[in-house]
Amino acid sequence: MNSSIAIALDAMGGDHAPAMVIAGALLALRKDPTLVFHIYGDETRLRPLMERHPSLQSAIIHHTPDVVPGDMKPSVALRQGRQSSMRMAIDSVKDGTTQGMVSAGNTGALMAISKFVLGLLPGIDRPAITSMLPTSNARCVMLDLGANLECGPDNLVQFAIMGALIARIELGIEAPRVGLLNIGSEEMKGHDEIRAAASILRDTPIPGRFIGYVEADEVPFGRVDVVVTDGFTGNIALKTLEGTAKLAASFLRQAMHDSMLAKLGAMLASGAFSKLRTRLDPRAYNGAMLAGLRGVCVKSHGGADARAFANAILVAAQLIEGGLNNRIREEFARLYGVPGNSNGVPDQVES
Amino acid sequence: MNSSIAIALDAMGGDHAPAMVIAGALLALRKDPTLVFHIYGDETRLRPLMERHPSLQSAIIHHTPDVVPGDMKPSVALRQGRQSSMRMAIDSVKDGTTQGMVSAGNTGALMAISKFVLGLLPGIDRPAITSMLPTSNARCVMLDLGANLECGPDNLVQFAIMGALIARIELGIEAPRVGLLNIGSEEMKGHDEIRAAASILRDTPIPGRFIGYVEADEVPFGRVDVVVTDGFTGNIALKTLEGTAKLAASFLRQAMHDSMLAKLGAMLASGAFSKLRTRLDPRAYNGAMLAGLRGVCVKSHGGADARAFANAILVAAQLIEGGLNNRIREEFARLYGVPGNSNGVPDQVES
Repeated sequence: MNSSIAIALDAMGGDHAPAMVIAGALLALRKDPTLVFHIYGDETRLRPLMERHPSLQSAIIHHTPDVVPGDMKPSVALRQGRQSSMRMAIDSVKDGTTQGMVSAGNTGALMAISKFVLGLLPGIDRPAITSMLPTSNARCVMLDLGANLECGPDNLVQFAIMGALIARIELGIEAPRVGLLNIGSEEMKGHDEIRAAASILRDTPIPGRFIGYVEADEVPFGRVDVVVTDGFTGNIALKTLEGTAKLAASFLRQAMHDSMLAKLGAMLASGAFSKLRTRLDPRAYNGAMLAGLRGVCVKSHGGADARAFANAILVAAQLIEGGLNNRIREEFARLYGVPGNSNGVPDQVES
Repeated sequence: MNSSIAIALDAMGGDHAPAMVIAGALLALRKDPTLVFHIYGDETRLRPLMERHPSLQSAIIHHTPDVVPGDMKPSVALRQGRQSSMRMAIDSVKDGTTQGMVSAGNTGALMAISKFVLGLLPGIDRPAITSMLPTSNARCVMLDLGANLECGPDNLVQFAIMGALIARIELGIEAPRVGLLNIGSEEMKGHDEIRAAASILRDTPIPGRFIGYVEADEVPFGRVDVVVTDGFTGNIALKTLEGTAKLAASFLRQAMHDSMLAKLGAMLASGAFSKLRTRLDPRAYNGAMLAGLRGVCVKSHGGADARAFANAILVAAQLIEGGLNNRIREEFARLYGVPGNSNGVPDQVES
């Protein structure tokens, strides 16, 4: 695509903000020079970080006096954070200044504000944090990764449908296999909500194939293309995956210093090792979309560094280019007869 | 220790039973020749498997006509499974024939039957599936890994106390750090039960130090010695860990066939790789105790092979030698004044 993509960045969110946001923007620009950034944050801190970099001269700084702290309650952020970098970045998606936004800030606040400002797509009651996870030979879509601590059966069913559409659009799988995360394949296992959702999904036409329950150790081996779960469980699974991948990488480093032979072997295999480290590196998978919103919002890890944040920016760019939200809306309308977007929401926030 | 240890094996439980149970017993005997096995199962299938092996001549076969299938409801197994290999192995712990048992069978049935037959230690309302998980430089105790789908605050508090005692006894840490698994460190996050448990633990003298919430990605890096969670969440975390470790091992194999140089490097580093594979191999961590019972029961993975099952047997032997159950009982009595075991349960089932 040659036309430029306008992306809003919450420059003040995340453990290493704002420096890593600016450094991440630079890295993302190298991969996709069509990106134009609108950077929301404290101008006096942003200017010195940006002026060294000629490639960021097209970026527009929007000064915002406030910040949403990492431990602020979502309800408080919603009331008191109107002049915050997060809020104003989301506002820019709503008013069409940008086509999507990325933040590494407070997850709960990001959910609450984006839901309030942008609203939900028709047919969807709650947004879901959605990401692509690595599997042995491909990737799978997983949701919810932390937006909704408790989910009723209807929420899980909506997540299944959104997840299937995302797998179809982003992974190119026409009839994705959808599974509900559970602790056993026997009918009697799992919470009531999961069993109720399974029962609804067996009788619901989804854009894919519902294959029943999937256990967490089957997910990395591609048993399904879409993993559906509540936000508490999904977040625990995601963080466990990340922690274990880091642990494996650290075991690998230790092993390669085990002996002189191991050190020599590691030197010879250094190209392969570097690829392996990339595959094990959670930063390569950073950037989760808030699926179900009328607009593109991407949540980055709070602890993201520049490379991880750059990845989240590229996720947002891909979602904007693919027009995912419009396609979710169309599919929901086609499949379930929910009304399309004819209620005056400007087109550009639907990208 | 020179005195022999009598362990009951449910020979019919698990995907690869009974062959892997017998092969696992052989491997365990090689590591600990003081073990004497009581093997519960179908004699006509067991005899041919065992008679080839002189070292198993001391093992005693107890013929059992029934099997608890993997998909049988716990309540049905409890009523109808009285002649099953699982039940009769547990009965042998109760009547003192053996000092502990190991099964790779139906988890729900194992919990229900062992709780019914052996009973709970004083002060404990529910047993917890407990395991030692690898961390970057040591191990940590994690519970519950799947016994109780829903846990109230009191259950979580009891798990915290048991877990701390297990860390003290099995890992030799005098004041273990205990954390509640949650999805964020902020006060507002997590289910009601977790927050209520945290609030109780802040005011309860436990045999260790309650450090608050811990996130799943901190666990592999040793932030705590004891991770407390409900059985649903714990099982998801455990299976995610196992799946990710297997994925990392498979990425490693792929990387080492990446090029001629990588293959050569892998050859030179083969000793270090073999250690690394062992550290990443979930079989090395197989065998979870059912903590809180009046007797030693160890649950093996259903998909265990001989090597994994042997590890579960050695876990049982260690628990018996360490007298863990007696020490949990004593500590609960000392800390909280719950009555000790003066109700006629034979000493040997307390080992």
